[in-house]
Amino acid sequence: MSNSEIDHLIQLLSKLPGLGPRSARRATLYLIGRRESLLAPLSKAMALAAENVKICRTCGNLDTVDPCAICSNPKRDQSIICVVEDIADLWALERSDAFRGRYHILGGTLSALDGIGPDELNIEGLVSRVREPQITEVILALNATVDGQTTSHYISDRLDASDVKISRLAHGVPVGGELDYLDDGTLSAALKSRRSLRGD
Amino acid sequence: MSNSEIDHLIQLLSKLPGLGPRSARRATLYLIGRRESLLAPLSKAMALAAENVKICRTCGNLDTVDPCAICSNPKRDQSIICVVEDIADLWALERSDAFRGRYHILGGTLSALDGIGPDELNIEGLVSRVREPQITEVILALNATVDGQTTSHYISDRLDASDVKISRLAHGVPVGGELDYLDDGTLSAALKSRRSLRGD
Repeated sequence: MSNSEIDHLIQLLSKLPGLGPRSARRATLYLIGRRESLLAPLSKAMALAAENVKICRTCGNLDTVDPCAICSNPKRDQSIICVVEDIADLWALERSDAFRGRYHILGGTLSALDGIGPDELNIEGLVSRVREPQITEVILALNATVDGQTTSHYISDRLDASDVKISRLAHGVPVGGELDYLDDGTLSAALKSRRSLRGD
Repeated sequence: MSNSEIDHLIQLLSKLPGLGPRSARRATLYLIGRRESLLAPLSKAMALAAENVKICRTCGNLDTVDPCAICSNPKRDQSIICVVEDIADLWALERSDAFRGRYHILGGTLSALDGIGPDELNIEGLVSRVREPQITEVILALNATVDGQTTSHYISDRLDASDVKISRLAHGVPVGGELDYLDDGTLSAALKSRRSLRGD
């Protein structure tokens, strides 16, 4: 590869998660072969994103406006806050279209090994948001990992003084999942939280 | 995802080979988190590539100059042409640093199934290049697939009239390869082309 501009593009692309040097070369050739339909629009979209995307000061979401479209949407339930680890989790919940309240993004989980304590996460922001009088429930939608659950416990302790309802996502069999492939922890959680089929 | 600019970036990134919607979302978050160090430089590198990269009219290589740096380099052997399928193959050979001649990129292989005949490939360009008096050898470095070998045969037929030497890459055991994992065709090719260890 004699060409420094192509080399530079390959080198930058290979830094993306999921792309290595080999797939970055493939992507570069693909892009140069689709100059008008993909390369130029992608370059423009990246420049726009670099310039315009902001972090919402209320919830931590990414948007071109601050507060973000979710926080400023009057149709969304102002009384429920759903706490998530990161923006990818917010996107996943939005795709499911199952939640109509607002979010709060922590920016990670507590992790002693990685040296992430409460001060590294946006927990103070959550505590002060929960003090607003219209808030009635906080849903802790953190990952069902050790770090996620530790963080859930820590947050529910921190919110102990307030009288809002605090809930977490249900544990159980994933929809479409086969029992044979589930781990013991999930199975026993699903059994413990079993639901009556004939009404309670 | 409420935001059209972020959505647009995700949608364009997901068109890259090797990235799907999920990894495009991950890459987008990664990029926005590294705005100065990666997103802006990548956007700029793409704009530069879209504007400046040309196809070399001699060999079909990509470069910012035409003829490309390889074709115009006087230190490279002007008497040997190495025929490859595409630019990725040229890059692979350049990385190996084993070839000091010039290249000719076909742009694919003959393929009856995909409707690719001799007119779709840059074969006429090769035939007229081989007529130049300084050319003494053409190396057919095509993939060892059925289509690649068919194309090799076709090209060597087309060059039959000229008196240049025509060669192909050796078949055999890949360096570092284990015999146990090799297919029968490769093993018998390696056996047939065995080399004496004590000099001939």
